[in-house]
Formats: sequence, C-alpha cells, structure tokens
Amino acid sequence: MDAALLYSLDLIGVFVFAVTGALAASRRQLDLVGFVFLAAMTGVGGGTIRDVILGATPVFWITQPAPVVLCALTGVIVFFLAPFVEYRYRLLLWADAIGIAGYCVMGAARALNAGASPFGAVVMGVVTATFGGIIRDIVTGEPSVLLRREIYVTATVVGAALFVLASHFGLPFWPAAFLGAICAFIVRAGALIFGWTLPTYRSRAGRAFPPR
Amino acid sequence: MDAALLYSLDLIGVFVFAVTGALAASRRQLDLVGFVFLAAMTGVGGGTIRDVILGATPVFWITQPAPVVLCALTGVIVFFLAPFVEYRYRLLLWADAIGIAGYCVMGAARALNAGASPFGAVVMGVVTATFGGIIRDIVTGEPSVLLRREIYVTATVVGAALFVLASHFGLPFWPAAFLGAICAFIVRAGALIFGWTLPTYRSRAGRAFPPR
Amino acid sequence: MDAALLYSLDLIGVFVFAVTGALAASRRQLDLVGFVFLAAMTGVGGGTIRDVILGATPVFWITQPAPVVLCALTGVIVFFLAPFVEYRYRLLLWADAIGIAGYCVMGAARALNAGASPFGAVVMGVVTATFGGIIRDIVTGEPSVLLRREIYVTATVVGAALFVLASHFGLPFWPAAFLGAICAFIVRAGALIFGWTLPTYRSRAGRAFPPR
Repeated sequence: MDAALLYSLDLIGVFVFAVTGALAASRRQLDLVGFVFLAAMTGVGGGTIRDVILGATPVFWITQPAPVVLCALTGVIVFFLAPFVEYRYRLLLWADAIGIAGYCVMGAARALNAGASPFGAVVMGVVTATFGGIIRDIVTGEPSVLLRREIYVTATVVGAALFVLASHFGLPFWPAAFLGAICAFIVRAGALIFGWTLPTYRSRAGRAFPPR
Repeated sequence: MDAALLYSLDLIGVFVFAVTGALAASRRQLDLVGFVFLAAMTGVGGGTIRDVILGATPVFWITQPAPVVLCALTGVIVFFLAPFVEYRYRLLLWADAIGIAGYCVMGAARALNAGASPFGAVVMGVVTATFGGIIRDIVTGEPSVLLRREIYVTATVVGAALFVLASHFGLPFWPAAFLGAICAFIVRAGALIFGWTLPTYRSRAGRAFPPR
Repeated sequence: MDAALLYSLDLIGVFVFAVTGALAASRRQLDLVGFVFLAAMTGVGGGTIRDVILGATPVFWITQPAPVVLCALTGVIVFFLAPFVEYRYRLLLWADAIGIAGYCVMGAARALNAGASPFGAVVMGVVTATFGGIIRDIVTGEPSVLLRREIYVTATVVGAALFVLASHFGLPFWPAAFLGAICAFIVRAGALIFGWTLPTYRSRAGRAFPPR
C-alpha cells in the first residue's frame, strides 16, 4: 500500500473529525481558540491514541505539520461559517459518520501492520474511530454519542471486521479498505436516516447512585 | 516468576473488569455491541494505560487475541444473564473489588520489572487498578467511584505498597503478591460491607462554579 | 540547556498542579488518600501525556521518585491547611495559572528536542499545560476550565508559540523560555483579574441533545 496515499486518507479523517470538534465548540459558544483547540483534539485524538497504543511514537502529528495546520484552519473556517449552518448538530453527525467509516479501517490496517492479531486489529479500528468523538463529548460535557440508541459503535465494528476478514482472505488493501469503509458508512447512515437500532437489553435501567 | 501464570492472572483481572463494564452497560440499557464495547474498554483499560506509561508497546491485547475475545464473550454473556441479577450495581462493586485487588499488585509488579522506583511502582499499581473503572464511569456518565465516601483508592494503595515493601524485603513474588492482593481485597470488602471511611476533610464543600 | 535545572522546573510545575488537584479534592470533601490521588493525577498528568505522545517512556515519574513524593506531600499538606484558606477556588486558579505558564514552554521545549515541527511543538506545549487540569476537572465532575469564558487555552498558545518562535530565531533557551512563560502568565493573569475574553462565536448555543 502507498504510504503517501494512506497519509492523505489520514488527513481526510483528521479534517472531518476537526469539523465535528469545531461544531461542538459552536454549540458551546466558545471563542476562536476554543474552536481550534477542540478541532485539534477531535481531529487528531483517535489517531493519537492509536499510535500510542501501537507504540508508533512520536505520534503522527509531532513531526508532520500538516495535521495540526489542517485542524487550525478548520477551526477558524468553522468559526466564521457555522452561524450560516441551520442544523449544526446534524452536520456534526454526518461528518462524524464519514470520519468513523474511514478511521475504523485505517486503525485496523495500521494495527495489522504492527503485528496485531485479527481481534486486536478490529478493536484498534473501533478505538481509533470512536475515541476522537469520545474525547470531544467528554470535554464539552455532551452526553457521549456511545450512549445513544441508534447504531454507532456497531458501524465501526462492521467496517473494521470486514476489512480484517477481507485482508485475511487475500483481498488487496484498497478493495478491502473500500469495502470496510463503505459498509461502515452505510450502517451508520442507515442509523442516522432510519434510526436503526439493535435490540437493547430487556430490563430496567440502573437506579441512580445513592447520594454521597 | 512464571510468565504464563502471570498472564493468566492478567486474564482474571480482565474478566472481572469486563463484567463491571458490561453491568454498567446494563444500567444504561445499551445494545449488545455497547455491552461488548464497555466490557472491552473497562477490561483492558487499566492494563492499556499501564503498558503505555511503561512503554511496553504494542500493548498486551494487540498481539494476544485472548483478552479481547474474553471481553467480547463476557459482554455477550452479561447481556443475556443480567436481567436475572437482582442487584446489578452490588455485583458490579464486588467484581470491581476483586479486580482492583489483583491489578494493584500486577501493575506494581510490572512497574518494578520495568525499573520503577518503589514510589513509582505504587503509583503504577494504583493507576492500573483504578483507571479501568474511571474510564467506565466517565464514558457512562456515572459519578466516579473515586468520589464516593467509602474507601476505594486506599485499598489499592495498601495492596500495592504491601507488595512493593514485601518484595523490597526479599519475599518471593507469589507470597508478596498474595499478601498485597488479599489485604487490598479485605480493605475494600470492609468498605463495602461496613462502610469503612477515612476521616474526610473538615471544612465546607466548594461553592458551585459561577455561571459561565 | 541544563538537564538538572530543567528537571527542577518540571518539579515546580508538578507542585503547583498538585496544589490545584488537592484543592479540587477539598471542594469535593474527599479523604486524605483522595487528596493525594488527585494531587498526583493533576501534578503528573500533563507531563505523562507529553512523555507518552513523544515516546519518552517509561514516563518521568516511574524511575524518579521525586515527583510522586512531592505530590503525596502536597496532598497531605493541603489536606491540613485548606480549611484555613478563605478562597480555595481562587487559589486553585492562580496556582493553575503558574502551572500552565511553565508547562506550555516545557512541553514545547521537549517536543522540539524530540524532533517536532514548530506546529507540533506548539500543540504539545498546549496539551502538556492543559491536560492535567482537564483530567482533574473530568474526574471531579467540575465543568471543564476549557469551557469558561475568560481566556485560558489562549495563554498557553501564546506562551508556546512565543517560545518556539524565539527559539527559531536563535534566542538561547533560557531567555526564550522566560519570554514564553512570562507572557503566558500575563495573559492568563489578565483574564483572571480583568476577565479578558476573546470575541466568542456569534450565534445561538446548541440545542440540548434529544432525549435518548
């Protein structure tokens, strides 16, 4: 696989996640630096955790200036354009859907390169795809996207697992990657449009914690 | 010490923490994938942070499939069995108690192997034992178990410090490890059964933050 | 630059952040171990993430006992002295201001040493300076200091960028470091005293998430 092309794919993922981070900043009415900071944390967050867990340090944005510059520009542009966007949370969710579709495959691919077992590679794909958004939600105090009813993590499991399976059965990198990413996106898009859910646990919710 | 046996101990810790993660998912009424995801994050979370801080990368679950498969199975089993459990939060707390007792010793042991100072090893034990639960509580939006009144972190400090002290004074690995883990469990069990607390800070609570 | 002197600067940063962690524990009325735990997490948190991202593992507090001992002592001292402090949150904010001023420069300096691009070094400075506080706020359930109106992240961007620029144009380490740290502190102090803000995003806040 072509390292330069892979890196460009990484940058697309960085960009769409940076958009979601900046949109989260707009929901909190932060200042310009807050937009850039959240864009950067969300944009490079998942990839940073991926590189750290795999031991690929210093992580990708330390020596390459492009991811950081891209996040900063994205934060600035969203700061000025977001007021013209009617449905910012909807845009955030769709950008996030593109991001997780690409990152679940990229995370699994880099894990396989680092000698991961197939199971480890799938988990790494899921972690890479979801942790940017988890960090974004935690820092801005939004309820985690993981806790919502519609399918989310499942889409990344599907994408990463299909890619790992296809690679295992000898499919070359690009077809396997497109297969995984497209299927992940379709699953998540179906969840966004049609409200697809999996059957949830059939019992009562937990009681609130007793007072301290 | 026997690497295979150590690894089996790690798997026990992974399992009990995975149970607590899946039980937290049941309190939130997530779907099957949510159960597996939270089981995996909680099961391998503390050990991942341990390996990353010590520089033992790729972390343990990347190349070995067993921890990930174990977490997935645990998530599935809890999904189907949890409705029959009357006191899920109580079960979660007791599984967590077993987990922190084992992990505070394992974390300290691996830190000593990596050349840690005795103080660094105790901290590493505490971090390994507590961070799986911290991640679980943050992601599910439950108040952190750290903020509760009964003794929690203290139990891991006791276990890690006893193990490090005993090792320092020449006790072989297994007696030292059992000493640490048993004492940590006793302290935490006492807190769960009898509500043991340490004296808390004697002053007023902080005012809420001024409005933004 | 002098490694021993650099290390002493690190310890000053560890100390002031440990003070803020312990003060956050006092606001939550935790016990002595809770004070020490939060002091340690906040004191070494930012530096730990810095070392992990740069690949400088095992991280600095594993082999050196001083940072851990310093955090423990700070936690104990604040536990006994905090009741005499009238404005604990104000003290927390000022200690935090000293900490971020020092750490934004130290983080950028270590990143440059590790071969970072100028952009990567600035981000590393910001991350090192802010993540101790982010961890503290998340674990104690306080609204993140990042979301407040007055300038915060901006101060660390100014400090890190001035240091990187000054180093780039050939200024020796110490003048560049003092320039960066002093300017970062002045910006944050102005925000604390005069309520300096940047213009915020001019639109409506985000709607709350729809019910699950």
